[in-house]
Amino acid sequence: MKVYGTSVSGNCYKIKLLLHVLKIPYEWIETDTRKGETKTQEFLLKNPVGKVPLLELDSGEFLSESNAILYFLAKDTDFFPKDLLIQSRILQWMFFEQYSHEPYIAVNRWLIHFQNKKDDPKIPNNHTKGLDALKIMNDHLAKNQFFGSEKPSIADISLFAYTHVAEEGHFPLSDFLNLSSWLRRIREIPDFIPIY
Amino acid sequence: MKVYGTSVSGNCYKIKLLLHVLKIPYEWIETDTRKGETKTQEFLLKNPVGKVPLLELDSGEFLSESNAILYFLAKDTDFFPKDLLIQSRILQWMFFEQYSHEPYIAVNRWLIHFQNKKDDPKIPNNHTKGLDALKIMNDHLAKNQFFGSEKPSIADISLFAYTHVAEEGHFPLSDFLNLSSWLRRIREIPDFIPIY
Repeated sequence: MKVYGTSVSGNCYKIKLLLHVLKIPYEWIETDTRKGETKTQEFLLKNPVGKVPLLELDSGEFLSESNAILYFLAKDTDFFPKDLLIQSRILQWMFFEQYSHEPYIAVNRWLIHFQNKKDDPKIPNNHTKGLDALKIMNDHLAKNQFFGSEKPSIADISLFAYTHVAEEGHFPLSDFLNLSSWLRRIREIPDFIPIY
Repeated sequence: MKVYGTSVSGNCYKIKLLLHVLKIPYEWIETDTRKGETKTQEFLLKNPVGKVPLLELDSGEFLSESNAILYFLAKDTDFFPKDLLIQSRILQWMFFEQYSHEPYIAVNRWLIHFQNKKDDPKIPNNHTKGLDALKIMNDHLAKNQFFGSEKPSIADISLFAYTHVAEEGHFPLSDFLNLSSWLRRIREIPDFIPIY
């Protein structure tokens, strides 16, 4: 299978990380959003939403949305256990990630670290909302080792991607002790691969 | 089971609609975000994210995030078929709904129709992004009857919720002919129940 992705993107890194820990071979096709490579007519035929990551199956079919790709790859593995309530909790955290976490934490990292737009008017509100998300995660980890399950799941892969580089968006990770311990646990997963 | 929800909310309506078409009995506990009822200490113990809808199981356990609740309820029904690629496409559209659709279409409906804030500075950008989402859906429906599957699935339930009331946020639904036909097909699902 092929993965179209921007290497520095957390959403794309999710897919790479899961493919590595599951030991699934793949071909990475670097597709840089910063160069407009996801908005070309050729790419829009593959994914009309114009975003990466995008998975191309050997059958030639395409699948988009990072967290849907994680589900596709993990469905019959330990990263998505069989129990319905656990599965639903894993998806609960993945929808939380896309709605209440990524739009603030990933966007401030993008503006500050990659675009050098430190005065963008969106940054203060994103910072407040991003801190809310990190606090909810940190509180959850006071009583749990992982998100959604007792073992690492695709909810952890999803939330790890932008959380572990949140300092690039000026979020003070060291204020969240439980989060820091959880990040270490994720890095200990066999065949873990870093984003950079 | 119990559902905590604000009746006019599209995210909460998704749950009510699916419960009706699946003929699952439930107790609705009206919990109005506009009155701060999701931010009380009592509610935050049930859902630390402070949002509805929230599902309470007979076991006393809670599940949040509208689309994760849809998955929980539909997993072994015709609204979530067995094929892995179809399941993944259904989730793809549900993540699209939460990331590229709801933040624009639901928010403008909220500001314009419920908060009477017609001059809010967020409205023009939300309108542009919301139109992008409606166009992507309309284009998909040029070749497909539904989203993710050949029959109605939880992707359709999810996308229907805010699309069918998009005119309340000043989105011109009648410009999108395929969308209008699809809305009619959803309303024809047996045991369909309207939002109002």
